[in-house]
Amino acid sequence: MIPLPKLEVCLSPALLHLFDAQGTITVIIDVFRATSTIVAALDNGASEVIPVAAVDECIAVGNRTPNSITAGERDGNIAHGLQMGNSPLSFPRSFVEGKSVVLTTTNGTRLLHMVQGSAEIITGSFLNLSALCSYLVSQNKPVLLGCAAWKDRFNLEDTLLAGAIVNRVASHFSIQCDSALAAATIEQQCKSDYLNYLRDSSHYRRLTSYGLLTDLEYCTTPDLHPIVPILRQGSLKNAKEV
Amino acid sequence: MIPLPKLEVCLSPALLHLFDAQGTITVIIDVFRATSTIVAALDNGASEVIPVAAVDECIAVGNRTPNSITAGERDGNIAHGLQMGNSPLSFPRSFVEGKSVVLTTTNGTRLLHMVQGSAEIITGSFLNLSALCSYLVSQNKPVLLGCAAWKDRFNLEDTLLAGAIVNRVASHFSIQCDSALAAATIEQQCKSDYLNYLRDSSHYRRLTSYGLLTDLEYCTTPDLHPIVPILRQGSLKNAKEV
Repeated sequence: MIPLPKLEVCLSPALLHLFDAQGTITVIIDVFRATSTIVAALDNGASEVIPVAAVDECIAVGNRTPNSITAGERDGNIAHGLQMGNSPLSFPRSFVEGKSVVLTTTNGTRLLHMVQGSAEIITGSFLNLSALCSYLVSQNKPVLLGCAAWKDRFNLEDTLLAGAIVNRVASHFSIQCDSALAAATIEQQCKSDYLNYLRDSSHYRRLTSYGLLTDLEYCTTPDLHPIVPILRQGSLKNAKEV
Repeated sequence: MIPLPKLEVCLSPALLHLFDAQGTITVIIDVFRATSTIVAALDNGASEVIPVAAVDECIAVGNRTPNSITAGERDGNIAHGLQMGNSPLSFPRSFVEGKSVVLTTTNGTRLLHMVQGSAEIITGSFLNLSALCSYLVSQNKPVLLGCAAWKDRFNLEDTLLAGAIVNRVASHFSIQCDSALAAATIEQQCKSDYLNYLRDSSHYRRLTSYGLLTDLEYCTTPDLHPIVPILRQGSLKNAKEV
Protein backbone atom coordinates (compact mmCIF):
# COMPACT_ATOMS: atom_id res chain seq x y z
CA MET A 1 0.00 0.00 0.00
CA ILE A 2 1.36 3.40 -0.96
CA PRO A 3 1.59 5.65 2.12
CA LEU A 4 -0.61 8.72 2.08
CA PRO A 5 1.11 12.10 1.72
CA LYS A 6 1.38 14.02 4.96
CA LEU A 7 -0.58 17.12 5.85
CA GLU A 8 0.65 19.62 8.44
CA VAL A 9 -0.58 22.95 9.80
CA CYS A 10 1.71 25.83 10.75
CA LEU A 11 -0.15 28.17 13.11
CA SER A 12 2.13 31.21 12.79
CA PRO A 13 4.93 32.44 10.49
CA ALA A 14 7.11 32.46 13.64
CA LEU A 15 6.87 28.64 13.66
CA LEU A 16 7.55 28.15 9.95
CA HIS A 17 11.20 27.14 10.51
CA LEU A 18 9.93 23.97 12.23
CA PHE A 19 8.39 22.67 9.01
CA ASP A 20 10.00 21.39 5.85
CA ALA A 21 8.14 22.99 2.96
CA GLN A 22 10.39 21.39 0.31
CA GLY A 23 8.27 19.50 -2.18
CA THR A 24 4.98 20.38 -0.50
CA ILE A 25 1.97 22.24 -1.72
CA THR A 26 1.87 25.19 0.66
CA VAL A 27 -1.50 26.81 1.20
CA ILE A 28 -1.29 30.39 2.46
CA ILE A 29 -4.26 31.29 4.65
CA ASP A 30 -5.13 34.86 5.58
CA VAL A 31 -8.90 34.79 5.93
CA PHE A 32 -9.21 38.43 7.14
CA ARG A 33 -8.56 39.42 4.40
CA ALA A 34 -5.66 38.97 1.96
CA THR A 35 -6.42 35.50 0.63
CA SER A 36 -10.16 36.25 0.48
CA THR A 37 -9.44 39.37 -1.57
CA ILE A 38 -7.01 37.51 -3.85
CA VAL A 39 -9.52 34.81 -4.77
CA ALA A 40 -12.35 37.33 -5.22
CA ALA A 41 -10.27 39.51 -7.56
CA LEU A 42 -9.13 36.54 -9.66
CA ASP A 43 -12.58 34.97 -9.86
CA ASN A 44 -13.95 38.35 -10.92
CA GLY A 45 -11.57 38.37 -13.86
CA ALA A 46 -8.35 40.02 -12.69
CA SER A 47 -5.56 38.66 -14.90
CA GLU A 48 -3.25 38.31 -11.90
CA VAL A 49 -2.64 39.42 -8.31
CA ILE A 50 0.95 40.44 -7.53
CA PRO A 51 1.58 40.16 -3.78
CA VAL A 52 4.18 42.56 -2.40
CA ALA A 53 5.41 43.14 1.14
CA ALA A 54 5.51 46.94 1.46
CA VAL A 55 3.56 50.00 0.31
CA ASP A 56 6.59 51.51 -1.48
CA GLU A 57 7.10 48.32 -3.45
CA CYS A 58 3.39 48.23 -4.26
CA ILE A 59 3.59 51.70 -5.83
CA ALA A 60 6.79 50.85 -7.74
CA VAL A 61 5.41 47.57 -9.14
CA GLY A 62 2.13 49.35 -10.03
CA ASN A 63 4.06 52.02 -11.92
CA ARG A 64 5.85 49.49 -14.12
CA THR A 65 2.88 47.12 -14.64
CA PRO A 66 0.50 48.11 -17.47
CA ASN A 67 -3.22 48.12 -16.71
CA SER A 68 -2.69 47.65 -12.97
CA ILE A 69 -4.40 48.62 -9.70
CA THR A 70 -2.45 49.15 -6.48
CA ALA A 71 -4.22 47.95 -3.35
CA GLY A 72 -3.60 47.63 0.35
CA GLU A 73 -4.60 48.89 3.76
CA ARG A 74 -2.89 49.91 6.93
CA ASP A 75 -4.99 50.11 10.09
CA GLY A 76 -8.22 49.70 8.17
CA ASN A 77 -7.68 52.56 5.69
CA ILE A 78 -6.41 52.60 2.10
CA ALA A 79 -2.65 52.89 2.47
CA HIS A 80 -1.28 56.30 1.44
CA GLY A 81 -0.38 56.36 -2.25
CA LEU A 82 -2.44 53.27 -3.22
CA GLN A 83 -5.67 53.24 -5.25
CA MET A 84 -7.75 50.66 -3.43
CA GLY A 85 -8.10 49.01 -0.03
CA ASN A 86 -8.04 45.36 0.95
CA SER A 87 -11.72 44.44 0.95
CA PRO A 88 -12.78 41.48 -1.20
CA LEU A 89 -15.88 43.56 -1.99
CA SER A 90 -13.79 46.30 -3.62
CA PHE A 91 -12.90 44.18 -6.65
CA PRO A 92 -16.09 43.56 -8.70
CA ARG A 93 -15.79 42.31 -12.28
CA SER A 94 -16.64 45.74 -13.68
CA PHE A 95 -13.55 47.10 -11.96
CA VAL A 96 -10.91 44.36 -12.13
CA GLU A 97 -11.56 42.36 -15.30
CA GLY A 98 -8.32 42.00 -17.26
CA LYS A 99 -6.30 44.01 -14.77
CA SER A 100 -3.23 43.25 -12.65
CA VAL A 101 -3.87 43.86 -8.96
CA VAL A 102 -0.72 44.73 -6.99
CA LEU A 103 -1.60 43.92 -3.38
CA THR A 104 0.17 44.56 -0.11
CA THR A 105 -1.19 43.34 3.22
CA THR A 106 0.28 43.14 6.68
CA ASN A 107 0.51 39.38 7.12
CA GLY A 108 -0.59 37.32 4.13
CA THR A 109 1.74 38.68 1.47
CA ARG A 110 4.66 38.44 3.88
CA LEU A 111 4.04 34.72 4.39
CA LEU A 112 3.78 34.19 0.63
CA HIS A 113 7.38 35.34 0.39
CA MET A 114 8.56 33.05 3.20
CA VAL A 115 7.81 29.65 1.65
CA GLN A 116 9.55 29.82 -1.68
CA GLY A 117 10.97 26.28 -1.35
CA SER A 118 7.55 24.70 -1.84
CA ALA A 119 6.66 22.69 -4.94
CA GLU A 120 3.64 24.96 -5.29
CA ILE A 121 2.15 27.86 -3.40
CA ILE A 122 -1.61 28.39 -3.50
CA THR A 123 -3.97 30.47 -1.38
CA GLY A 124 -6.91 29.38 0.74
CA SER A 125 -9.99 31.08 2.12
CA PHE A 126 -13.55 30.11 2.98
CA LEU A 127 -14.49 31.64 -0.39
CA ASN A 128 -12.66 28.85 -2.24
CA LEU A 129 -12.81 26.09 0.39
CA SER A 130 -14.29 23.27 -1.73
CA ALA A 131 -12.26 24.11 -4.85
CA LEU A 132 -9.10 24.16 -2.78
CA CYS A 133 -9.87 20.81 -1.12
CA SER A 134 -10.58 19.17 -4.49
CA TYR A 135 -7.29 20.51 -5.79
CA LEU A 136 -5.29 19.20 -2.80
CA VAL A 137 -6.83 15.74 -3.09
CA SER A 138 -6.20 15.64 -6.85
CA GLN A 139 -2.48 16.48 -6.51
CA ASN A 140 -1.55 13.67 -4.09
CA LYS A 141 1.42 15.58 -2.66
CA PRO A 142 2.36 16.57 0.91
CA VAL A 143 0.52 19.67 2.09
CA LEU A 144 1.47 22.44 4.48
CA LEU A 145 -1.33 24.77 5.56
CA GLY A 146 0.32 28.06 6.57
CA CYS A 147 -1.71 30.43 8.72
CA ALA A 148 -0.71 34.06 8.20
CA ALA A 149 -1.70 34.95 11.79
CA TRP A 150 -1.44 38.57 12.98
CA LYS A 151 2.06 39.91 13.44
CA ASP A 152 3.09 36.33 14.28
CA ARG A 153 0.35 35.88 16.89
CA PHE A 154 -1.89 32.84 16.51
CA ASN A 155 -5.32 33.75 15.18
CA LEU A 156 -8.62 31.98 15.30
CA GLU A 157 -9.98 32.56 11.78
CA ASP A 158 -6.97 31.17 9.92
CA THR A 159 -6.88 28.16 12.25
CA LEU A 160 -10.61 27.65 11.70
CA LEU A 161 -10.14 27.50 7.93
CA ALA A 162 -7.18 25.14 8.34
CA GLY A 163 -9.50 22.92 10.41
CA ALA A 164 -12.23 23.08 7.75
CA ILE A 165 -9.69 21.91 5.15
CA VAL A 166 -8.36 19.13 7.41
CA ASN A 167 -11.87 17.85 8.13
CA ARG A 168 -12.69 17.72 4.40
CA VAL A 169 -9.50 16.04 3.13
CA ALA A 170 -8.40 13.94 6.14
CA SER A 171 -9.03 10.54 4.56
CA HIS A 172 -6.58 11.34 1.74
CA PHE A 173 -3.63 12.34 3.95
CA SER A 174 -1.49 11.10 6.82
CA ILE A 175 -2.06 13.60 9.62
CA GLN A 176 0.43 13.34 12.47
CA CYS A 177 0.53 16.98 13.39
CA ASP A 178 -0.98 18.26 16.63
CA SER A 179 -1.75 21.65 15.08
CA ALA A 180 -3.85 19.95 12.41
CA LEU A 181 -5.73 17.92 15.05
CA ALA A 182 -6.38 21.06 17.11
CA ALA A 183 -7.61 23.01 14.08
CA ALA A 184 -9.91 20.14 13.10
CA THR A 185 -11.39 19.98 16.60
CA ILE A 186 -12.10 23.72 16.59
CA GLU A 187 -13.88 23.54 13.25
CA GLN A 188 -15.96 20.55 14.36
CA GLN A 189 -16.96 22.39 17.51
CA CYS A 190 -18.23 25.51 15.72
CA LYS A 191 -20.44 23.46 13.39
CA SER A 192 -19.99 25.70 10.32
CA ASP A 193 -21.35 28.73 12.16
CA TYR A 194 -18.04 30.41 11.43
CA LEU A 195 -18.71 34.09 11.95
CA ASN A 196 -20.62 33.50 15.16
CA TYR A 197 -17.74 31.43 16.50
CA LEU A 198 -15.29 34.21 15.66
CA ARG A 199 -17.29 36.85 17.52
CA ASP A 200 -14.83 36.98 20.45
CA SER A 201 -11.70 36.80 18.30
CA SER A 202 -9.17 39.62 18.10
CA HIS A 203 -9.66 40.26 14.38
CA TYR A 204 -13.44 40.37 14.69
CA ARG A 205 -13.07 43.07 17.34
CA ARG A 206 -10.43 44.96 15.38
CA LEU A 207 -12.18 44.88 12.00
CA THR A 208 -15.68 45.57 13.28
CA SER A 209 -14.21 48.61 15.05
CA TYR A 210 -13.27 49.80 11.53
CA GLY A 211 -16.88 49.21 10.37
CA LEU A 212 -15.98 46.13 8.36
CA LEU A 213 -18.61 43.62 9.51
CA THR A 214 -19.82 43.13 5.92
CA ASP A 215 -16.31 42.07 4.95
CA LEU A 216 -16.22 39.55 7.79
CA GLU A 217 -19.57 38.08 6.72
CA TYR A 218 -18.32 37.79 3.16
CA CYS A 219 -14.97 36.25 4.13
CA THR A 220 -16.62 33.51 6.20
CA THR A 221 -19.05 32.39 3.46
CA PRO A 222 -17.85 29.17 1.81
CA ASP A 223 -17.49 28.69 -1.91
CA LEU A 224 -18.49 32.06 -3.38
CA HIS A 225 -15.33 32.00 -5.54
CA PRO A 226 -14.61 28.39 -6.53
CA ILE A 227 -11.14 28.78 -8.03
CA VAL A 228 -7.59 28.09 -6.83
CA PRO A 229 -5.06 30.97 -6.93
CA ILE A 230 -1.56 29.66 -7.65
CA LEU A 231 1.78 31.51 -7.46
CA ARG A 232 3.86 31.60 -10.65
CA GLN A 233 6.89 33.88 -11.00
CA GLY A 234 5.76 36.14 -8.19
CA SER A 235 2.21 36.47 -9.46
CA LEU A 236 -1.00 34.72 -8.39
CA LYS A 237 -3.22 33.41 -11.17
CA ASN A 238 -6.26 31.18 -11.50
CA ALA A 239 -4.75 27.63 -11.49
CA LYS A 240 -7.02 26.65 -14.40
CA GLU A 241 -5.49 29.36 -16.56
CA VAL A 242 -1.78 28.68 -16.08
CA MET B 1 -15.93 48.83 38.05
CA ILE B 2 -12.35 47.55 38.34
CA PRO B 3 -11.31 45.87 35.08
CA LEU B 4 -10.56 42.17 35.29
CA PRO B 5 -6.92 41.12 34.92
CA LYS B 6 -6.08 39.67 31.53
CA LEU B 7 -5.37 36.04 30.80
CA GLU B 8 -3.35 34.95 27.76
CA VAL B 9 -2.07 31.64 26.40
CA CYS B 10 1.29 31.20 24.68
CA LEU B 11 1.20 28.03 22.57
CA SER B 12 4.95 27.59 22.08
CA PRO B 13 8.20 28.98 23.55
CA ALA B 14 8.93 30.23 20.01
CA LEU B 15 6.03 32.69 20.42
CA LEU B 16 6.98 33.88 23.91
CA HIS B 17 8.53 37.13 22.64
CA LEU B 18 5.03 38.23 21.57
CA PHE B 19 3.82 38.35 25.17
CA ASP B 20 4.66 40.69 27.99
CA ALA B 21 5.25 38.53 31.06
CA GLN B 22 6.18 41.51 33.28
CA GLY B 23 3.99 41.52 36.35
CA THR B 24 2.06 38.39 35.37
CA ILE B 25 1.69 35.07 37.06
CA THR B 26 3.20 32.73 34.49
CA VAL B 27 2.03 29.14 34.55
CA ILE B 28 4.45 26.70 32.94
CA ILE B 29 2.64 23.73 31.40
CA ASP B 30 4.42 20.56 30.33
CA VAL B 31 1.80 17.87 30.85
CA PHE B 32 3.92 15.03 29.40
CA ARG B 33 5.68 15.09 31.79
CA ALA B 34 7.83 17.69 33.55
CA THR B 35 5.14 19.67 35.35
CA SER B 36 3.27 16.49 36.26
CA THR B 37 6.43 15.03 37.78
CA ILE B 38 7.23 18.27 39.63
CA VAL B 39 3.84 18.42 41.35
CA ALA B 40 3.88 14.70 42.16
CA ALA B 41 7.35 14.91 43.75
CA LEU B 42 6.45 17.98 45.84
CA ASP B 43 3.09 16.60 46.95
CA ASN B 44 4.85 13.39 47.94
CA GLY B 45 7.11 15.35 50.26
CA ALA B 46 10.16 16.43 48.24
CA SER B 47 11.52 19.58 49.89
CA GLU B 48 12.10 21.19 46.48
CA VAL B 49 12.50 20.51 42.77
CA ILE B 50 15.41 22.30 41.09
CA PRO B 51 14.77 22.60 37.35
CA VAL B 52 17.90 22.68 35.18
CA ALA B 53 18.32 22.83 31.42
CA ALA B 54 21.04 20.26 30.70
CA VAL B 55 22.19 16.85 31.95
CA ASP B 56 25.69 18.14 32.85
CA GLU B 57 24.19 20.90 34.96
CA CYS B 58 21.86 18.38 36.59
CA ILE B 59 24.84 16.29 37.69
CA ALA B 60 26.76 19.35 38.92
CA VAL B 61 23.83 20.73 40.93
CA GLY B 62 23.14 17.27 42.33
CA ASN B 63 26.78 16.98 43.48
CA ARG B 64 26.62 20.21 45.46
CA THR B 65 23.09 19.77 46.89
CA PRO B 66 22.88 17.65 50.05
CA ASN B 67 20.27 14.90 50.15
CA SER B 68 19.42 15.22 46.45
CA ILE B 69 18.23 13.03 43.58
CA THR B 70 19.17 13.77 39.97
CA ALA B 71 16.44 13.02 37.46
CA GLY B 72 15.78 13.35 33.75
CA GLU B 73 15.25 11.40 30.55
CA ARG B 74 16.38 11.64 26.99
CA ASP B 75 14.41 9.71 24.37
CA GLY B 76 12.43 7.84 27.02
CA ASN B 77 15.41 6.51 29.00
CA ILE B 78 17.06 7.74 32.20
CA ALA B 79 19.68 10.20 30.96
CA HIS B 80 23.26 8.93 31.29
CA GLY B 81 24.73 9.89 34.67
CA LEU B 82 21.39 10.62 36.39
CA GLN B 83 19.70 8.52 39.08
CA MET B 84 16.07 8.63 38.05
CA GLY B 85 13.87 9.20 34.99
CA ASN B 86 11.07 11.67 34.39
CA SER B 87 8.00 9.65 35.33
CA PRO B 88 5.66 11.14 37.95
CA LEU B 89 5.29 7.57 39.21
CA SER B 90 9.00 7.33 40.05
CA PHE B 91 8.76 9.72 42.99
CA PRO B 92 6.69 8.05 45.74
CA ARG B 93 6.79 9.47 49.28
CA SER B 94 9.02 6.63 50.48
CA PHE B 95 11.65 7.75 47.97
CA VAL B 96 11.45 11.55 47.83
CA GLU B 97 10.31 12.75 51.25
CA GLY B 98 12.62 15.51 52.47
CA LYS B 99 14.85 15.33 49.40
CA SER B 100 15.83 17.87 46.73
CA VAL B 101 15.02 16.62 43.23
CA VAL B 102 17.27 18.09 40.52
CA LEU B 103 15.27 17.68 37.30
CA THR B 104 16.17 18.22 33.67
CA THR B 105 13.64 17.76 30.86
CA THR B 106 13.68 18.64 27.18
CA ASN B 107 11.03 21.34 27.11
CA GLY B 108 9.52 22.25 30.45
CA THR B 109 12.63 23.24 32.37
CA ARG B 110 13.84 25.29 29.40
CA LEU B 111 10.63 27.35 29.42
CA LEU B 112 10.93 27.88 33.19
CA HIS B 113 14.18 29.71 32.51
CA MET B 114 12.68 31.86 29.73
CA VAL B 115 10.09 33.80 31.75
CA GLN B 116 12.12 35.27 34.57
CA GLY B 117 10.44 38.71 34.28
CA SER B 118 7.16 37.39 35.68
CA ALA B 119 5.83 38.42 39.07
CA GLU B 120 5.56 34.73 39.87
CA ILE B 121 6.23 31.46 38.09
CA ILE B 122 4.16 28.43 38.98
CA THR B 123 3.61 25.10 37.26
CA GLY B 124 0.41 23.52 35.96
CA SER B 125 -0.71 20.01 35.15
CA PHE B 126 -3.95 18.05 35.21
CA LEU B 127 -2.70 16.65 38.53
CA ASN B 128 -3.09 20.06 40.20
CA LEU B 129 -5.75 21.60 37.97
CA SER B 130 -8.28 22.69 40.62
CA ALA B 131 -5.63 23.86 43.11
CA LEU B 132 -3.98 25.89 40.38
CA CYS B 133 -7.26 27.50 39.29
CA SER B 134 -8.15 28.43 42.87
CA TYR B 135 -4.73 29.99 43.25
CA LEU B 136 -5.02 32.06 40.04
CA VAL B 137 -8.45 33.36 41.01
CA SER B 138 -7.27 34.25 44.51
CA GLN B 139 -4.29 36.30 43.27
CA ASN B 140 -6.25 38.68 41.00
CA LYS B 141 -3.23 39.37 38.76
CA PRO B 142 -2.72 39.02 34.98
CA VAL B 143 -1.96 35.45 33.94
CA LEU B 144 0.11 33.97 31.14
CA LEU B 145 -0.31 30.25 30.51
CA GLY B 146 2.90 29.07 28.82
CA CYS B 147 2.78 25.77 26.96
CA ALA B 148 6.16 24.02 26.88
CA ALA B 149 5.33 22.37 23.54
CA TRP B 150 7.82 19.93 21.96
CA LYS B 151 11.00 21.48 20.61
CA ASP B 152 8.93 24.60 19.90
CA ARG B 153 6.20 22.69 18.04
CA PHE B 154 2.62 23.23 19.21
CA ASN B 155 1.32 20.27 21.17
CA LEU B 156 -2.15 19.12 21.98
CA GLU B 157 -1.83 18.08 25.63
CA ASP B 158 -0.42 21.37 26.91
CA THR B 159 -3.05 23.29 24.93
CA LEU B 160 -5.75 21.03 26.34
CA LEU B 161 -4.70 21.82 29.91
CA ALA B 162 -4.53 25.54 29.08
CA GLY B 163 -8.11 25.21 27.82
CA ALA B 164 -9.20 23.39 30.99
CA ILE B 165 -7.78 26.26 33.05
CA VAL B 166 -9.41 28.93 30.84
CA ASN B 167 -12.80 27.23 31.06
CA ARG B 168 -12.59 27.08 34.87
CA VAL B 169 -11.40 30.64 35.56
CA ALA B 170 -12.86 32.60 32.59
CA SER B 171 -15.36 34.64 34.60
CA HIS B 172 -12.53 36.11 36.71
CA PHE B 173 -10.37 37.34 33.80
CA SER B 174 -10.51 39.45 30.66
CA ILE B 175 -9.72 37.05 27.82
CA GLN B 176 -8.91 38.74 24.52
CA CYS B 177 -6.44 36.21 23.24
CA ASP B 178 -7.25 33.93 20.31
CA SER B 179 -4.98 31.18 21.66
CA ALA B 180 -6.99 31.11 24.89
CA LEU B 181 -10.27 30.91 22.95
CA ALA B 182 -8.91 28.07 20.80
CA ALA B 183 -7.65 26.14 23.82
CA ALA B 184 -11.00 26.58 25.58
CA THR B 185 -12.87 25.27 22.53
CA ILE B 186 -10.65 22.20 22.34
CA GLU B 187 -11.21 21.37 25.99
CA GLN B 188 -14.97 21.83 25.66
CA GLN B 189 -15.02 19.52 22.66
CA CYS B 190 -13.21 16.64 24.38
CA LYS B 191 -15.62 16.70 27.34
CA SER B 192 -13.02 15.77 30.00
CA ASP B 193 -12.16 12.52 28.22
CA TYR B 194 -8.62 13.82 28.01
CA LEU B 195 -6.54 10.74 27.30
CA ASN B 196 -8.95 9.47 24.68
CA TYR B 197 -8.84 12.84 22.92
CA LEU B 198 -5.03 12.76 22.92
CA ARG B 199 -4.87 9.32 21.30
CA ASP B 200 -3.81 10.71 17.90
CA SER B 201 -1.40 13.29 19.30
CA SER B 202 2.33 13.17 18.63
CA HIS B 203 3.31 12.73 22.29
CA TYR B 204 0.83 9.92 22.82
CA ARG B 205 2.40 8.07 19.92
CA ARG B 206 5.95 8.84 21.03
CA LEU B 207 5.49 7.97 24.70
CA THR B 208 3.39 4.84 24.18
CA SER B 209 6.14 3.65 21.83
CA TYR B 210 8.41 3.83 24.91
CA GLY B 211 5.88 1.76 26.89
CA LEU B 212 4.71 4.74 28.96
CA LEU B 213 0.92 4.47 28.68
CA THR B 214 0.59 4.27 32.49
CA ASP B 215 2.37 7.63 32.73
CA LEU B 216 -0.03 9.16 30.22
CA GLU B 217 -3.05 7.88 32.16
CA TYR B 218 -1.63 9.31 35.36
CA CYS B 219 -0.74 12.68 33.81
CA THR B 220 -4.27 13.19 32.46
CA THR B 221 -6.03 12.49 35.78
CA PRO B 222 -7.20 15.72 37.42
CA ASP B 223 -6.45 16.67 40.99
CA LEU B 224 -4.35 13.78 42.29
CA HIS B 225 -1.83 16.27 43.68
CA PRO B 226 -3.73 19.37 44.83
CA ILE B 227 -0.82 21.74 45.47
CA VAL B 228 0.76 24.66 43.58
CA PRO B 229 4.51 24.49 42.82
CA ILE B 230 6.04 27.97 42.85
CA LEU B 231 9.52 29.06 41.75
CA ARG B 232 11.69 30.79 44.35
CA GLN B 233 15.39 31.45 43.76
CA GLY B 234 15.63 28.80 41.09
CA SER B 235 13.84 26.13 43.08
CA LEU B 236 10.21 24.94 42.95
CA LYS B 237 8.44 24.53 46.27
CA ASN B 238 4.92 23.92 47.49
CA ALA B 239 3.38 27.43 47.50
CA LYS B 240 1.83 26.75 50.94
CA GLU B 241 5.28 26.19 52.41
CA VAL B 242 7.12 29.28 51.16
